[in-house]
This record gives sequence, structure tokens and C-alpha cells, in this order.
Amino acid sequence: MKNKDNQIERVKIIPLGGLEQIGMNITAIEYGDSIVVIDCGMSFPEDDMLGVDFVLPDTVYLEENYSKVKGFVITHGHEDHIGAIPYVFRKINVPIYTTKLTMALIENKLEEHEMLDVIRRNVVNFGDIVTLGDIRVEFIKTNHSIQDAAALALYTPAGVLFHTGDFKVDYTPVFGDSIDLQRFAEIGRQGVLALMCDSTNAEHPGFTMSERTVGVKFDQIFTEHAKSRLIIATFASNIDRVQQIINSAAKFGRKVVLEGRSMVKVIGTAIALGYVDDPAGTVISVDEMKNYPPEKLVLVTTGSQGESMAALSRMAANIHKKVTLIPGDVIVFSSHPIPGNEKAVSNVINELSEIGAHVIFEDTHVSGHACQEEIKLIYSLLRPKYAVPVHGEMRHLRAHAALAESLGIPKDSIFILHSGDVLELGNDSARIIGKVETGTILVDGLGVGDVGNIVIRDRQKLSEDGIVIIVLTLEKYTNRLLSGPDIVSRGFVYVRESEGLLAEAKQTVDEAVFYCLDHNVADWGKIKSDIKDSLSDFIWRRTQRRPMILPIIMEADT
Amino acid sequence: MKNKDNQIERVKIIPLGGLEQIGMNITAIEYGDSIVVIDCGMSFPEDDMLGVDFVLPDTVYLEENYSKVKGFVITHGHEDHIGAIPYVFRKINVPIYTTKLTMALIENKLEEHEMLDVIRRNVVNFGDIVTLGDIRVEFIKTNHSIQDAAALALYTPAGVLFHTGDFKVDYTPVFGDSIDLQRFAEIGRQGVLALMCDSTNAEHPGFTMSERTVGVKFDQIFTEHAKSRLIIATFASNIDRVQQIINSAAKFGRKVVLEGRSMVKVIGTAIALGYVDDPAGTVISVDEMKNYPPEKLVLVTTGSQGESMAALSRMAANIHKKVTLIPGDVIVFSSHPIPGNEKAVSNVINELSEIGAHVIFEDTHVSGHACQEEIKLIYSLLRPKYAVPVHGEMRHLRAHAALAESLGIPKDSIFILHSGDVLELGNDSARIIGKVETGTILVDGLGVGDVGNIVIRDRQKLSEDGIVIIVLTLEKYTNRLLSGPDIVSRGFVYVRESEGLLAEAKQTVDEAVFYCLDHNVADWGKIKSDIKDSLSDFIWRRTQRRPMILPIIMEADT
Repeated sequence: MKNKDNQIERVKIIPLGGLEQIGMNITAIEYGDSIVVIDCGMSFPEDDMLGVDFVLPDTVYLEENYSKVKGFVITHGHEDHIGAIPYVFRKINVPIYTTKLTMALIENKLEEHEMLDVIRRNVVNFGDIVTLGDIRVEFIKTNHSIQDAAALALYTPAGVLFHTGDFKVDYTPVFGDSIDLQRFAEIGRQGVLALMCDSTNAEHPGFTMSERTVGVKFDQIFTEHAKSRLIIATFASNIDRVQQIINSAAKFGRKVVLEGRSMVKVIGTAIALGYVDDPAGTVISVDEMKNYPPEKLVLVTTGSQGESMAALSRMAANIHKKVTLIPGDVIVFSSHPIPGNEKAVSNVINELSEIGAHVIFEDTHVSGHACQEEIKLIYSLLRPKYAVPVHGEMRHLRAHAALAESLGIPKDSIFILHSGDVLELGNDSARIIGKVETGTILVDGLGVGDVGNIVIRDRQKLSEDGIVIIVLTLEKYTNRLLSGPDIVSRGFVYVRESEGLLAEAKQTVDEAVFYCLDHNVADWGKIKSDIKDSLSDFIWRRTQRRPMILPIIMEADT
Repeated sequence: MKNKDNQIERVKIIPLGGLEQIGMNITAIEYGDSIVVIDCGMSFPEDDMLGVDFVLPDTVYLEENYSKVKGFVITHGHEDHIGAIPYVFRKINVPIYTTKLTMALIENKLEEHEMLDVIRRNVVNFGDIVTLGDIRVEFIKTNHSIQDAAALALYTPAGVLFHTGDFKVDYTPVFGDSIDLQRFAEIGRQGVLALMCDSTNAEHPGFTMSERTVGVKFDQIFTEHAKSRLIIATFASNIDRVQQIINSAAKFGRKVVLEGRSMVKVIGTAIALGYVDDPAGTVISVDEMKNYPPEKLVLVTTGSQGESMAALSRMAANIHKKVTLIPGDVIVFSSHPIPGNEKAVSNVINELSEIGAHVIFEDTHVSGHACQEEIKLIYSLLRPKYAVPVHGEMRHLRAHAALAESLGIPKDSIFILHSGDVLELGNDSARIIGKVETGTILVDGLGVGDVGNIVIRDRQKLSEDGIVIIVLTLEKYTNRLLSGPDIVSRGFVYVRESEGLLAEAKQTVDEAVFYCLDHNVADWGKIKSDIKDSLSDFIWRRTQRRPMILPIIMEADT
């Protein structure tokens, strides 16, 4: 496609979401003076980000190009796609376009942040096309582990960019329609410049099973454990899963109680909007629970990832206010552990086993992401010129790239992008032409961005071997030692059992200090570094540990 | 069985290995004045044991009953069964009995600790019976992921206790004989009082595959990747696995290089003792590597668990001194991640993928532990009166108990023991009669036991939100403020971006201090707690964080 000057039109894809591993989804599509942003996700911290609650994308590129940003289009309502909205939209307030349920989940967030009134929100239906500057965006029905997930076709003067969002192919979904493969095919027939397709399960051969297969398993569990209380843990956002639990419960004459703050909130929203059916009044409140015997109840709870403060973990640790587990209770994990959570989940299973509960975790979950055969199907329908694997860790993106290559896409037409890479695509060629500034913003408590690499590195050091503090007071002008040096340690050794060690440490510090003072060293920096070096050597030699050593010199005005 | 006073004889089983989850294997068998200890393992720290390198069992019970302890019998040479020997034997020096390879691995350890000369060591052959006081112990051949693994039959006047050790049933082992099921059957025919059987895979139906199936997969990988360098990561202790790599390498004309300190050490020992065959001179040193093209080499390396300092991780991070990975290298993970290591392994796979290496991890490993059908086989051969599931987390022990029950062992004849439980067994009855003192000893660097709950809790707090230190100097006798209060923080916030916050914090502390001094508060404890409370409130209100707050008051003698 060429413009009026007979030049080939080009469009840019710029992922802004930090490291791939962390998986915040936020991608800018840029043509001329129009930028459309796909998704606005947050992510959870890596193990070594000590004390960090969650992670946000740094959107400096969008801030610098604010006037070009025409809107955000959101594929679905999971945290890694919507979680950063309340933070990013304090800096970039442009309209949001998305489907009904997704918007309702975004509105829940905006309400908590008291931002509902200031954000322009536009609910779209599948098939709608939104015009955002020079880019038009069509929302296309897909299937995923949450309702109302959309793929996006972005029509630009340079060609069509197709983004699948997170998706699977479910021919027999629990609620609503199957993925609109016909529309995929039509758009493919018209020609697709680049496909950005979900990579999460690109290492897995075959097809992801239909959500309905889990319902069959639920019926079996309800049949086999008719005399026991059932407690099913799953993601609050897995609305179809909860629907199936309600269906099985209604069939077997049980009532459903929702437990956990996010479970009550999300499913409440879904019921209100008609995305969960409960015609028989199966769902009851936690306070009504006492009116039913255990074998007539199903608890649906958060905590399927072993999160220490979630409802299930509190039940397992016997600190839940309203639910006390007893031997014979049946606990179903209707989820897989997200990588990194395996140990936490296993610890909860151990606690449940200790209580004597029966734990079930096989065949009680299906993924919400497409496996290899589904990915191949999408490529066959869309036949893109370029492939840009998205959503997944590096290993998944590479597996996806190999898959694309096996489908006949030339190796040099497949792009694995790092955060900030600017991929410029035209009908004749595509290449990475540069890099824009991106990054991650760490959130700890109320602090957004006041914790960074240095603070995290200090926390890591503190967590390994603790801290040893040396304090002394020097008289102003004279540098006479008025008090100390005193040694205080935390997280280093048991003081009582290490008196000898600490006495020798004190002696080491004394020597360093007196040497400096005797030699009239007036530079406090020098005194501090002498203390630090000598004590650090001593401690390493004696313990092979490296606590943080922090000399503090006070100046006293006598 | 009755004694001369016509009383029923009784024997005790006392697990001493700390929490089940941690899995240090050390169990006392006690009859009259004879104690025999099975295994002496260490374990690796849980995620929340910050800075801890490894964990040892507290053997106070054995120390208090030193005169009764006749010897240690060791089932096999894995760390969780032999790792604590150099520490425990400083306190309890009694003879060790075990098989040849296991003893050689123990000797490696003793040598490092310069204890080789002082420990009495007795190598036994399968079929040997060792007399230890009133208890006789027979060593019986089994299969496991290390050679020379033994089950133990402990003949006591109260009956036979049978301990499987860690085992699987491999009818076609790579090296040596299959498990001696005939001897199991003979002993079973004579009558077994209690069976202590491996529970690790008790949740898994079916049979664990033979080690040989991995060899078939290796041949396939060697065939498919004939043009690439191969790098295979596995446990150093998985000697049969390395044997199979050597076999495949010899068959396909490649040389094998061992990488990683423990790999070189363990396999070196195994080759020296004849437990690994290398007739064709396939194994070469790392320095000879340069004489061969990449496609003629196989590197066998440590790091299959994503351990950050292991050889494979260093290669992936491009900081290995002798091996630089290139696109096209083929990396094989011949192991499963141990629970808790999944994320670390995945991070290494991501790094390898980034480099462009091809990573293989499917069908390249089999477990060394028995699955349900094998466990059933052992019960059928031994037909024990009592079942005492061992080796595994609580979930595995429970699954094992359910399995034993399904085989007809009454529920009240199955005992899941916690550390320190004293299970007394006789022909007529068995019950837990008490608890002895046990515990865990944390090792950090050179310090054995100088880190405990308080230190760990401090490290956890420090790791979450850092530390804020307040220092002030008061004049002796007068309590006049000579300097400060000064605030120093580490791991809390970026100081530069939080000047306002820190200034207000200083003001809060000033107010608390001046209030105390103005009101002539002489009790330093009171001053400190006032500082702590007011600052803690302020920081929580402003940041929702809870750093450790540490007031230090210095006394100056002007």
C-alpha cells in the first residue's frame, strides 16, 4: 500500500510492557500522528523484588507523545491487561474502548481509585469498528478463561495488524458464542500484514480442551463425594468455571457460597451483568451458610495459587473467621499453579492433608490459552505476512516462532520483540528501527515508584545476612570520641549465642576508630570506610557472611 | 513375641528429622538399650528461611542416649540421607554401616571436613547382616536414581521392621542388578511387624518407567541433533543417567565433558569405584574440549534445578569461563524441577531461548521413586502388620496411607509420624506413646545454629520494607540532647525521591524525643518505644509499609 506520494505506507508496533517474563501487556500501534494502545496491564513481582506488591509499566513514551494517543483498546479483563489503568490514566487520560464485562471490571477498579468520573469509557460490541485517528479497530469474539475476550483487527493505511489477545478455540463454550473463526477467515482473505498471536501454550502440542470437560469432572466429584462438604478453589476471574460449579450444585441440590473478596466482587459483577446465570437461586451469602448441613454446600474460594492471605490458605491454616475445615472435607483445586507458585500451592495441600481433608487436583482445570494446533489454525485463517509472537515468556515466544516458521513464514519475517523495540512494518519489508524508553515502576504499599533497584538491592542484602550498625559520637571541631563505638545488629546472629564473636567485632571496630582518631583523620568518609572494611573482613573470615555494615557518626555540640 | 517374663516385646520408631516438608531423613529404631539410626540427612531451606544455606537435624535425643546408640545404617548416598553426617558425628561418633558407593560419597564429605580418620566406617555387601546391640540389620538391594541403594530389614526381639529407603522397581536397570524382590518375599513370609516405605510418588498411579527408557530418548536426541553441540543437565548424583549419556556418546562418536564441581567429584568417584563404565575413553577433561568440534562433544553439567551458581546457569547468563553458548546449541534438561525450583528452571530456559539455543525437557527423565503399583507390590510381598509411611511431604504420606488402607491394612494400624513422635510397636498393638525433643539447626555460612527464629524473622521484616534507624546522643546524668535525632534508612525508600516524607518523619521523631526530654523521661526504654510507636504510625499512614524501626540512644560522657 502506497500513500499519495507513492511511498510505501508503514506502521509501527512498540511493546511498552517491561520485561517479557513479567508480562505486563501494553503495546502501542503507531501510524503517523495516531497511536492506539492495546491493553494496559500490571504484573506481579519476581521473587527477588522483595517487598514489592506489584509492577507497573513506565509509559514515558506515551506521555511524550500524548497528543498522538487516540485511545486504549482492551482485549479482556484480566489484571495483566487492565491492572495498570488506574495508574497510567493519571498521566494519560484518553478514551477507553472495550467490551461490556471487561469495562465493568475496569470500572470496579476506577471506582476504588475514585477515578470513575474522569475517564471516558466506551463499551463496544463484537463486530463494532472504532475509529481512532488514522487507525480503525474491530473487536472480534474469541474464547478465553474470562468472558467477553476480544481479538482486535487494526486497520491502518499500511495494512491490517491482527492481535488475538489471550485466546483459545472453544467450540462448546459454557456461556455465549464460540470464537468467530468466520470473521478471522474473512479478514485473512482480505490480507493481514502482521499477526500478534498469544504464545502462552506454544510449547504444548495439540488442542486445549473445552471448558465443558471440567463441568463433566465436577459432576463426577459431586457424585462421588455426596456426603462431604465441597470447597472449590479457582481464580475469581474464571467466571465460566464458577458458572459450572453453580450448574453442578443446582443439579445435585447444593447451595454455593462465594468466599474471598475478589471472588465476591468479580462474580457479583458478572451476575449483575448477566454473565453468570443463577436461575435456581443457588448462590447464597456466607451468613446463610449456617442454615445448611455441610453436604448441601459448595464453597467457591480464592487461594488456588497458595496466596498466603487468600481465603483457602486461611482455612488451611485454621485462621479463617467463618470456615473451619474438618477431616472429610473435600477440597478441589480448579486451577494450575502459575510458574513460581508451585511450592506455595503444595504447602497449602500439605496443611489440608494434615487436617485430614481430601484434596483433588487432577483433571479439574483446562487452560484458557491456545495450544499448537489452535495457533496453527489461526495462522491458516489469517495468513499474515509477518508474525510477531506476543504474550509469554521468552521460551514460549521462541516456541511460537518455530511454529510460525514450520507454517511457512520465513524466519526473517518473524519478530520477537523486547520492550521498547520499534518494529516498523510495510508491505515490502519490516525491521526494528530503534528503541524507545520503557521500564518498570515498582509499587510497595502506597508508594508508586519510590522503590527501585538500589532499595531492592539493599533489601536483598538485608534478607541474606541482616545488618550490623556501628554508631559513635564525635565532638564538633575536636573530633573527640564522646560515645561508642557501639554495635547493634539485626538479622545477623543470635546475640546471646554469639557474645564472643560480637566482642571481637567490637574490638575490631575500636581498633579502626582509634587508629583514625590517633592519626587525626578528620574525614568522616574515611573513618566510615575504615570501619566498614575492617569489620567486613573480620565477619567474612569468621562467619563467611556479608551482612550490610552501616557506620553512623554523630556530631555532638557540647 | 514375648520375652522371658512372658511380656510382649516392643520396639520403638522415632523420626528425628524435623518437619516432614523439609525432609531430612534420620530415624531412630530403639529396643531396650540398643538404638540404631537409619540415615543422617540434611535438607535445603524453605523459601522463608532467608540467608540459610542448609538445615540440619537437632540430635539432642541421640546425645542424651549416646551410650545406647550402636551405629548408623545408611540407605543410599543422597544429601537428604548422608548430608548431616559431618555435623552430627562431631557429637555422636559411632560406627557407620553402608554399601560401597554410599560409603565413598560419605568419605568425600568427611575428607572435606577433615574427619576421615576419626569415624569408624564399615562397608557392607547386600545380604550382609550387621549386629548392633540387640538389633540386627540386613542390607537388601533396591533400585533408585543412585547406585548401591539399600532397603533395610531390622530384626528385633519384637519383630522385623522393614525400611525400603528411597526406591523404585527397575527390572532392567542400567547398571547392576534389579531390586531383590525374592528377598523381600522371603522376609515377608517370615513376618514383618512394620513397613516403612517410600511415599514420594504415592500420589502417582501406575509404575515408574525404567531408567533405560531415558537412554532410548538420548539416542533419539543424538540422532536428530547430529550437527549441534549437546549439553545435558542432570543431578551429579544420578550416576546411571551419566552412564547412559556416555553410552550414547560412544555410540555416536562424541566425547563427554563433565562440568560443575559436584559432577566432576561424584562421577569421578563412581568411575574410580567401577560404578560407571567408560571402556572407550569417552570422557575427556574440559581442557581437551578444544581439540574437538562442537558436534563431537556432549557436556554433562550441573544446574538442572536452575541453581544460580551452577554451571548451566552460568552458561545461560554468559558468565561461564570455559563455555560460551551459541545459537543452535541443544540443551537437554534430564531432570524434573524439584517443587519450588520451577521458576528458577524456567528463568534459565528463558535465558537459553534468548541466546537461540534449542531446549529439550520432555521424556528426558524418569523418577527414582516408586509409584502406586510398585508400593502395592512391596506391601504384597512383605504383608506388614503396621504401615509407617516415610519420605515425602504430608500430602504424599496421606496418599500412601490411603493406599495402604486400600490394601487391607486397618486404618488404626497405619501411622503418620511427626518429628519426635515415639511409636511403640508390639505384636498385639502399636501406639504413639510420647514425644522426644527434636528440631532443626540452621546453617548460614560457617555458623551452625547461630541463626534461629528471631534472626530469620528479622531478616523477613528487613526484606519486606527495609530498616529505619534513629540515633541520638544524650549526655550522661543530665540527659541533655547532644546530637540527633538523625534518621538513616536502608531498603525503605529512595531517599532522593522521598525528601518530603523523610523530613516529616524527622519531625515526628523530634516531637517524640522533645516531649520525653521536656517531661524528664529518664527511662531510655520509654523514649525508644515512644519514638518507635510514633514513627511507625506515621510511616504506615503515609506509605502502608512497616519497615523495622530501630532507635539507638548513645550516652556521652562530656
